Amino acid sequence: MNHASTHQTTDITQVLGENASRVEAMLDRLLPDGGGPEKPLLDAMRYACLNGGKRLRPYLTVATARLFGVSEEQAFRAAAAVEMLHCYSLVHDDLPAMDDDELRRGRPTCHIAFDEATAILAGDALLTLAFDILADPATHDDAAVRIELVRGLTEAAGAHGMVAGQMIDLAVEHRQVDVATVERLQALKTGALITYSAEAGAILGEADPDARESILAYGRDVGFAFQIVDDLLDEEGDEAAMGKAVGKDAAAGKATLVGVLGKDAARQKADRLAERAVESLEAFGDSAGALRDVARFVVTRRT
Amino acid sequence: MNHASTHQTTDITQVLGENASRVEAMLDRLLPDGGGPEKPLLDAMRYACLNGGKRLRPYLTVATARLFGVSEEQAFRAAAAVEMLHCYSLVHDDLPAMDDDELRRGRPTCHIAFDEATAILAGDALLTLAFDILADPATHDDAAVRIELVRGLTEAAGAHGMVAGQMIDLAVEHRQVDVATVERLQALKTGALITYSAEAGAILGEADPDARESILAYGRDVGFAFQIVDDLLDEEGDEAAMGKAVGKDAAAGKATLVGVLGKDAARQKADRLAERAVESLEAFGDSAGALRDVARFVVTRRT
Repeated sequence: MNHASTHQTTDITQVLGENASRVEAMLDRLLPDGGGPEKPLLDAMRYACLNGGKRLRPYLTVATARLFGVSEEQAFRAAAAVEMLHCYSLVHDDLPAMDDDELRRGRPTCHIAFDEATAILAGDALLTLAFDILADPATHDDAAVRIELVRGLTEAAGAHGMVAGQMIDLAVEHRQVDVATVERLQALKTGALITYSAEAGAILGEADPDARESILAYGRDVGFAFQIVDDLLDEEGDEAAMGKAVGKDAAAGKATLVGVLGKDAARQKADRLAERAVESLEAFGDSAGALRDVARFVVTRRT
Repeated sequence: MNHASTHQTTDITQVLGENASRVEAMLDRLLPDGGGPEKPLLDAMRYACLNGGKRLRPYLTVATARLFGVSEEQAFRAAAAVEMLHCYSLVHDDLPAMDDDELRRGRPTCHIAFDEATAILAGDALLTLAFDILADPATHDDAAVRIELVRGLTEAAGAHGMVAGQMIDLAVEHRQVDVATVERLQALKTGALITYSAEAGAILGEADPDARESILAYGRDVGFAFQIVDDLLDEEGDEAAMGKAVGKDAAAGKATLVGVLGKDAARQKADRLAERAVESLEAFGDSAGALRDVARFVVTRRT
């Protein structure tokens, strides 16, 4: 059992690595490049995206899209849009007025490498470009599918989704919070976009309502498990391996489930969520193996 | 002639005022409201939008939509999306790292009234909400029309549009620039969104290609004329009437057409652009009277 699970983790690491290369190539293709006086903006957009992250979110999009027979070109386009949205959120979150981070994926954050104004604008432009890619006929020939992709992302990313989560994250710093508040915060701040990452593949594949609901249930559990493990790694992880500062949540008084439940209970919850995510995929049989591997990876990863 | 033109200006002022009230009402309806720990975000979004601006951009959307027989509900929804996009850009432009403005439309700017983090997030959420409204079936029942609205806005607002213009605006501060650079800067920074404001009405109304091209030509000229007059008012205007600091462009070393051409030549250019905008509407006959009035208003306004 232990051997099998270790073997699986190795496999998914390789699969994620290959996927990350293809996501990187698609990002490189879709990001603007050029000279002129706006060059710092374009450079900062590329810097913020082309940095070798794990690319978990775009992998969820691609793996789900494959489940529904979507073409690789369309799947990777939507995946790149999801990743741009994620990268914009990191650029803005890292700003001095927000989390004030200087290191991200082992490199200076965008506002350190460029300047604050350029980082703000690069985030704005990445957010806008994510919608542009989803709305582009090359992403799907049916306008109804494209508009559903756009709408799903506006809901996941906006004032009732990710941005609300970031606001709550800042608002409850250094304050006593209960489990329900932390769960809502995480569902909004990271859960909504991770759930959408999987949902986007189902939208592209025009999945029927039952299949779509299964994917949503899977995405919600994977997203929450991911965030809990992120917080555990922030407490326990190795700074060099993580490529960013660790122990920052506690220092910044961040509300995390690890903080309110303790490490052991948080770890158990993450494992239970990953199991339930796997169970959500039952109706898909063997074809959902890639998504099951992701759910298990999310709670076994070390970085 | 002078009398007629004064009379016309009075009329359009009243028309704009009535339109502004209806835009305000639609913004109030579409902006999120609520409590919880994310309340500062929602409050800041409302603060940034509900402030009694002239609402020129949404009026262009509504007036163009009427030309093509669009329902008032759909026209004002798209108009509100355009205004939210504009308000997001003002919130981010006013940030300390950008233009560092403390006064906007006679009130403290968003980051002064709230704080920088909340202002950054409010801008992000307004940008996202603008796309959400355009993608909503209530804005048009045909997904192809909605996706065209979304795509038009991503192009006007992103790294090849408004955000690029803002980057250039910052990049060329205190530098010697030529007329071509200033014209490109203005076309991107303010021209693209003003042009889209009119175009959105034509998209909603499923205008034929010729009509659409006429509206685009009109929008480009009105947008450029608007910006030139804005720069003239910054040099000549009355701070109390403007509701913001004046003389700031010169102090900040901003590149303006007034700076490179001088006041008289800039004024003449604005007048010529307004005339040409009016000529672009020839094919519409009397039905385009409202749009003609806007073009004339843009170059005769005092605030």
